[in-house]
Amino acid sequence: MRIGILGGTGPQGRGLGRRFAMAGHEVLLGSRDAARAQQAAAELAVAGDVTGVANADAAGAEVVVVAVPYEGHADLLASLADALEGKVVVDCVNPLGFDKQGPFPLDVPDGSAAQEAQRILPGSTVVAAFHHVSAVLLDDPEVTDIPGDVLVLGEDRDVVARVIDLVPAIPGARGVYAGRLRLAHTVESFTANLIAVNRRYKAHAGIAVTGLPDATAGTPA
Amino acid sequence: MRIGILGGTGPQGRGLGRRFAMAGHEVLLGSRDAARAQQAAAELAVAGDVTGVANADAAGAEVVVVAVPYEGHADLLASLADALEGKVVVDCVNPLGFDKQGPFPLDVPDGSAAQEAQRILPGSTVVAAFHHVSAVLLDDPEVTDIPGDVLVLGEDRDVVARVIDLVPAIPGARGVYAGRLRLAHTVESFTANLIAVNRRYKAHAGIAVTGLPDATAGTPA
Repeated sequence: MRIGILGGTGPQGRGLGRRFAMAGHEVLLGSRDAARAQQAAAELAVAGDVTGVANADAAGAEVVVVAVPYEGHADLLASLADALEGKVVVDCVNPLGFDKQGPFPLDVPDGSAAQEAQRILPGSTVVAAFHHVSAVLLDDPEVTDIPGDVLVLGEDRDVVARVIDLVPAIPGARGVYAGRLRLAHTVESFTANLIAVNRRYKAHAGIAVTGLPDATAGTPA
Repeated sequence: MRIGILGGTGPQGRGLGRRFAMAGHEVLLGSRDAARAQQAAAELAVAGDVTGVANADAAGAEVVVVAVPYEGHADLLASLADALEGKVVVDCVNPLGFDKQGPFPLDVPDGSAAQEAQRILPGSTVVAAFHHVSAVLLDDPEVTDIPGDVLVLGEDRDVVARVIDLVPAIPGARGVYAGRLRLAHTVESFTANLIAVNRRYKAHAGIAVTGLPDATAGTPA
């Protein structure tokens, strides 16, 4: 599949781009600065089919992952609303603030970054996913197993299933449906807890859902 | 250890009481209605040392678990503030609303139920924990393995460690520090996501943290 990544030169976007390319997808790595995207794409060429482009061109892919900092999230999506019409938009943005006590969830007027995206992009189908996978592990080709679950939230059951099917591009990871978009803020905010875990235990922590019958894990029946 | 449970006749309180008793703790199962608590305690007698008492008497234990519905949370704690002075108060309350689309997190003026408890109980040390363990599995003595992590949040490192040490009373479970109290709302709210998971996959889902070095799991060094 052709996958565009907005903010593809940031840690999360770059790491996801690497894994999607390694799994055989065609990746359009987007950036505000196309030259910077081309440079990042060249560094990822060993992983597979990665092209560096402007964000506007990455928005032309079938599935478009949004991996920009929250600060620029609303403005970028508003500027690309036409290009994203009819597309599946996978938002993995974590609206966090930082102070001397560490990270904390920001209040988001729409409830969550994903709901903000859906408001700005009424013609797109927004799914929230890929919030918690460690960018460090994603971008390290020596790491061949990244156990944990990618929580996938959305309104459209078929589109959620399509995104769940993308998750195995991350070796060892599994996609799990985790609710409607109105529950996305909790998942975005949980990244602050994982940063607290990482600091206390010196780890690259992820999350997993226990108690799922193996037969029904992944795409729900 | 002597553990009191406020709301010990509800599903979560009763399930935790059973497991604490099975692990050899002395459990004071509290309720607004002492007669009802005595009846529930009689049903749990097979598990170990369980006494049914009024909530005010359960508040006399060393560690007091708060497992009441959010609706009655603030009023109950205010009424027990003197008895809870100097105690470790473990809040496992999930402030959720329900509508036709299912559960959703309530806005809590203090940020979270745990922060509300700490405001009402300035002389107690509040820790947030035990939000996600399935009450159904806890209360079923036939279930001998409940894998997953209990996320434990709090300000006082030693008290957090004491609560983490209580977690193995749940067979297969592990306690993991997951941030300061100001990050508790995310953990409380995540229960709504787990309910969505349970509905979609017909499961009793829990949560686990991946990527922790085994040597540092549980009580942080």
